[in-house]
Amino acid sequence: MAQPTQDPAAFLDAHAERARDELFDFLRIPSVSARSEHDGDTRRAAGWLRDALAAIGLDAALHETPGHPIVLGEWRGAPGAPTLLVYGHYDVQPAEPLELWDSPAFEPTVRDGNVYARGSVDDKGQLFLHVKALEAHLRTRGALPVNVIVLAEGEEEVGSVNLEAFVEAEKARLACDAVVISDSAMFAPGIPSILSSLRGMAYFQIDVQGPAGDLHSGSYGGAVPNPAMALARILATMHDADGTVAIPGFYDAVRPFPDAVRAQMRALPFDDEHFRAEAGSPALGGEPGYTVLERLWTRPTCEVNGLLSGYTGEGAKTVLPAKAMAKVSCRLVPDQDPLEIERLMAAHVARVAPPGVTVTVTHLHGGRPWRADLGGPLFDAAKQALAEVFGREPVVTGEGGSIPVVGDFQRVLGATVLLVGFGLPGENAHAPNEWMSLDNFHRGAKVIARLYDLYAKA
Amino acid sequence: MAQPTQDPAAFLDAHAERARDELFDFLRIPSVSARSEHDGDTRRAAGWLRDALAAIGLDAALHETPGHPIVLGEWRGAPGAPTLLVYGHYDVQPAEPLELWDSPAFEPTVRDGNVYARGSVDDKGQLFLHVKALEAHLRTRGALPVNVIVLAEGEEEVGSVNLEAFVEAEKARLACDAVVISDSAMFAPGIPSILSSLRGMAYFQIDVQGPAGDLHSGSYGGAVPNPAMALARILATMHDADGTVAIPGFYDAVRPFPDAVRAQMRALPFDDEHFRAEAGSPALGGEPGYTVLERLWTRPTCEVNGLLSGYTGEGAKTVLPAKAMAKVSCRLVPDQDPLEIERLMAAHVARVAPPGVTVTVTHLHGGRPWRADLGGPLFDAAKQALAEVFGREPVVTGEGGSIPVVGDFQRVLGATVLLVGFGLPGENAHAPNEWMSLDNFHRGAKVIARLYDLYAKA
Repeated sequence: MAQPTQDPAAFLDAHAERARDELFDFLRIPSVSARSEHDGDTRRAAGWLRDALAAIGLDAALHETPGHPIVLGEWRGAPGAPTLLVYGHYDVQPAEPLELWDSPAFEPTVRDGNVYARGSVDDKGQLFLHVKALEAHLRTRGALPVNVIVLAEGEEEVGSVNLEAFVEAEKARLACDAVVISDSAMFAPGIPSILSSLRGMAYFQIDVQGPAGDLHSGSYGGAVPNPAMALARILATMHDADGTVAIPGFYDAVRPFPDAVRAQMRALPFDDEHFRAEAGSPALGGEPGYTVLERLWTRPTCEVNGLLSGYTGEGAKTVLPAKAMAKVSCRLVPDQDPLEIERLMAAHVARVAPPGVTVTVTHLHGGRPWRADLGGPLFDAAKQALAEVFGREPVVTGEGGSIPVVGDFQRVLGATVLLVGFGLPGENAHAPNEWMSLDNFHRGAKVIARLYDLYAKA
Repeated sequence: MAQPTQDPAAFLDAHAERARDELFDFLRIPSVSARSEHDGDTRRAAGWLRDALAAIGLDAALHETPGHPIVLGEWRGAPGAPTLLVYGHYDVQPAEPLELWDSPAFEPTVRDGNVYARGSVDDKGQLFLHVKALEAHLRTRGALPVNVIVLAEGEEEVGSVNLEAFVEAEKARLACDAVVISDSAMFAPGIPSILSSLRGMAYFQIDVQGPAGDLHSGSYGGAVPNPAMALARILATMHDADGTVAIPGFYDAVRPFPDAVRAQMRALPFDDEHFRAEAGSPALGGEPGYTVLERLWTRPTCEVNGLLSGYTGEGAKTVLPAKAMAKVSCRLVPDQDPLEIERLMAAHVARVAPPGVTVTVTHLHGGRPWRADLGGPLFDAAKQALAEVFGREPVVTGEGGSIPVVGDFQRVLGATVLLVGFGLPGENAHAPNEWMSLDNFHRGAKVIARLYDLYAKA
């Protein structure tokens, strides 16, 4: 048994092995939120987490939702000190295709210092390192320097469908000064990172209806407008030849990233050719005047996600299709608004649609973009904690994808959000052989433990 | 029993009921060439036809092919007179979906003077009326005024895959002055028609390859070229805004239809609005400066027949697709050549393909367009026979679709081809409830019987 100590970091060092064992227990529960046959497992993972929070001294309980329960843990023993809300999720992606795993998805296996298991990095490992940081404080000092709320949902992998309503309903109880989330990756091994932006989303389906049914292209072709050709013509108007989005008004609300942030992004060690090869793309492309990382993190896009029309099987069928469909989505950056983009998209499509077909634009879902204020006590505390534990200054990164709950927390709770993740590139978050670096798991807990002290003092 | 007579037309009138009964026997054989479970039925139909030809006095036999047999019947008792080759097919389309038939597909049923059955108009009824015309001559006069070869295949509905080789191999035996084919429709009820042109075909698949696998549109979108968007841009270059095909050189080989033919087409009673409503299209379209019938019969096209890329299911999936595919086909008119169109298409696509993706164009199949010489003894004889039997001058029509064997007969046998059909608009040739007018079946036999006399005298 390790000796009691007053230092949370030393406690974490002394109890590293037990922390791993506990994490592995958590990872063994197949809490696949998307599969109803795992509903019992998902509830079991929620109960496991509640018990883990209660064991270290938080008031912890399950809160029912129409779906999987929310786990809430609270420690409010620091009146007058700020309140931090830690958000994470205990559900995981389905593990299929199982045959592509080198070791069983729900039997954590260590290779080369990494633990392989579904949920290891997304997000059980990154959530549990916060629990370990809290334990380190409470076991060594009996108290935390800040008030803490742990909010873990079980539906992140299925769209967080019940989270916003819970946060709205409980916003008095969840009132906090800042939200800390570890559900992202570092820029590279050994390079601690703070995620400063997320792109938003406006996802559309465009349906072009031509004739009432499929027609013979010999008997009707040349006199009846072809909806697939009409769709192609519509889609071709969405970009200029140089890759700029050509939907009028599309860029109007874009607030350029500060030069200082762009300069930091340009200074990051990034190999375009390595990125291209990893994507397996014949070449890279995108808006002129921006680096690859700027295109991914700071610029909005318009992409075709799917196309379907007429005959798509082997060989030839001479059909003039009745209809054609495209899935088209825009990634958004601050301050683009999904509803305004919907209006611009609909107006553009209506303007460019060729005659002789009926075109409808349906907005399937949207999410706002987000950008952090790169400053303030929480940001500064995180920077220092990362620098101390990793031995180098953190870099500021962006994220091309979307995490809709971030905007919800900021809007409903009025709190600053800090995204500090300990995953790594290539971690296979939604793929077979998901893994997390055990060193990052350990260092991550130390960073969070140190963050409490630094933030409390700020 | 009807009295013997010297007049083939009177014989046909007297034996009309028996002719129908025999046709119904032929229609009851489900000779679906595309379905191997019907191989026995298909062979049975070939044997039935051979026996019918032998019964009226032709030398008739089955000729084996790698697929379904070819039926050949010959009567060569008019040395010095011209030789006519009658082409038709005894196989039929599949009858599915069976539940949409108002009476069983292989139980001929008469309603409103039409016989409903699979194969009634395509092509058993139209082939068998030639047999009845031959019988009328042979039974009344014991001879024909011309030499006749009946060539019926059992693979027309599966691409006539063995016909060209048979014609090539037997071209000495099949030597003839003219080919007569009844496998098309009249322009309208009561309006006898001669089909003067067929469009050809060049059918392509365009494949656009982007990244090696589907990518997350958040993590890669904006920096990796999107193959579906590239495909849309390529397809959008294939027409000008007014509907003209914009592939350079596409129209170079087009030989304009004579003004006289265009004038005849413009004089046909054709209701654009009725055509539009029947197609169920919001509007009509096509090349400026041409009527609907001219667009269908005299002008080439470029159509998208199919599109497939990325996610096409319900809802939203944020995928940057690895690839995108289009089926694109051109209907051709004389003297466009499928191989030259392939060259032009490939060159055009290579020129307009956006950077960052790999594009391949595959020519799946092609067929030459065909145009009749509107004159000469066979054409004149057909005109007069149709006028006598139907009581009005025939009209000259075109056909937007393709019948590749027509070009083969013309090329291999060096024979004039006459396309004179007795179907009607709406006959459901490849659909449930296929039908043929029994009056047209009867008149058609009279037209063909009269044609022999008029052609022999010319």
